[in-house]
Amino acid sequence: MPKVIQVNQSVYAVNDAIADEVRAKNQEHHTVMLNVMASPGAGKTTLLLKTLDALKGEYRIGVMEADIESSVDADIIEAAGVRAIQVHTGGECAMDAEMTLQAIEEFHTENLDLLILENVGNLVCPAETDTGADKKVVLLSVPEGDDKPLKYPLMFEVADIVLITKIDTKPYFTFNEQAVIDNIRLRNKHAEILFVSAKKGDGMDRWLEWLKALL
Amino acid sequence: MPKVIQVNQSVYAVNDAIADEVRAKNQEHHTVMLNVMASPGAGKTTLLLKTLDALKGEYRIGVMEADIESSVDADIIEAAGVRAIQVHTGGECAMDAEMTLQAIEEFHTENLDLLILENVGNLVCPAETDTGADKKVVLLSVPEGDDKPLKYPLMFEVADIVLITKIDTKPYFTFNEQAVIDNIRLRNKHAEILFVSAKKGDGMDRWLEWLKALL
Repeated sequence: MPKVIQVNQSVYAVNDAIADEVRAKNQEHHTVMLNVMASPGAGKTTLLLKTLDALKGEYRIGVMEADIESSVDADIIEAAGVRAIQVHTGGECAMDAEMTLQAIEEFHTENLDLLILENVGNLVCPAETDTGADKKVVLLSVPEGDDKPLKYPLMFEVADIVLITKIDTKPYFTFNEQAVIDNIRLRNKHAEILFVSAKKGDGMDRWLEWLKALL
Repeated sequence: MPKVIQVNQSVYAVNDAIADEVRAKNQEHHTVMLNVMASPGAGKTTLLLKTLDALKGEYRIGVMEADIESSVDADIIEAAGVRAIQVHTGGECAMDAEMTLQAIEEFHTENLDLLILENVGNLVCPAETDTGADKKVVLLSVPEGDDKPLKYPLMFEVADIVLITKIDTKPYFTFNEQAVIDNIRLRNKHAEILFVSAKKGDGMDRWLEWLKALL
């Protein structure tokens, strides 16, 4: 009988063990790590810029930007005066724990209070892969529509907090706030749900409050 | 020496052979198949609704809606009076050729002039997998931003046509039309690029013209 190898199980088991290593390393350094996930263009970078602007005087923060290609986002974060590293995932649609471990070793996160991973823009793959982050932050933008939690349930299931972004554009789109809450609650009873506009500032105080409580 | 199996290569080779089967079947039936790809919420379903409305009197059309979960989109298409089937990908972030073949057999596409696959909302995985479609239609919405072709290059590289959607919302976002064209052209010299608003009608005539020329 040939040996049967459960590849998927093995891949996930290995990933989870490395994710635990990431978590242990961060705990040792008293670094809180966020995994920020969303569709492409949901406003992750804009939210981060405003968040960094509010917190960078008070905390030591670093940002890991994960993308298939380009260094657009890391350049933007660096220009805002915050340490950033661009990680190219080699075509992969999400960061995994091994890539995260490599990145934090390269990046020297030992002096950071807060380490933010901006994951690849994608509502599927990043939800499946534990990076070792302490909290999972999921963004859903008003232009995307209130039905997305029905179509990409795992992403909303794993979220610790869901930020409904770009709420300043609500007049131009069909988007029902109660419907999006109901759709998220089908899969996740406990996640914090906040409505924000990073551009105009709405809801940012509550988001920053949530974040500071972790630090 | 143990035998070395190139799993990825084998998976792709098998997929491509099945994609050829899909193409042969569609050709035999004189059915043109589109693979419509974009981020979640880029406006695929709205574009399709307007497209079906314009063409359904003249052509026999069927729509395959691929999603991780829910039948939101297939319900919408059926309500518009067009044959639709909902395909659940079992957690996968894109349709592959095998799923497509199963779906077209189930769906009985032999009497269709046009078969439209609305793929899972994702700018990464669907670009990597040949479904057997004749043309690849990629949507990028104004709210997502003009830098997305830099971050998700393969999607824009494989496109036969790129539709920049929701252009009616341009006043509310920072979006440079020349920049998005330049960013697409870095990877793709030949794709048609059209600016459309399915909601308001702008650019829809050129899109329908492009589509009718295939039928």
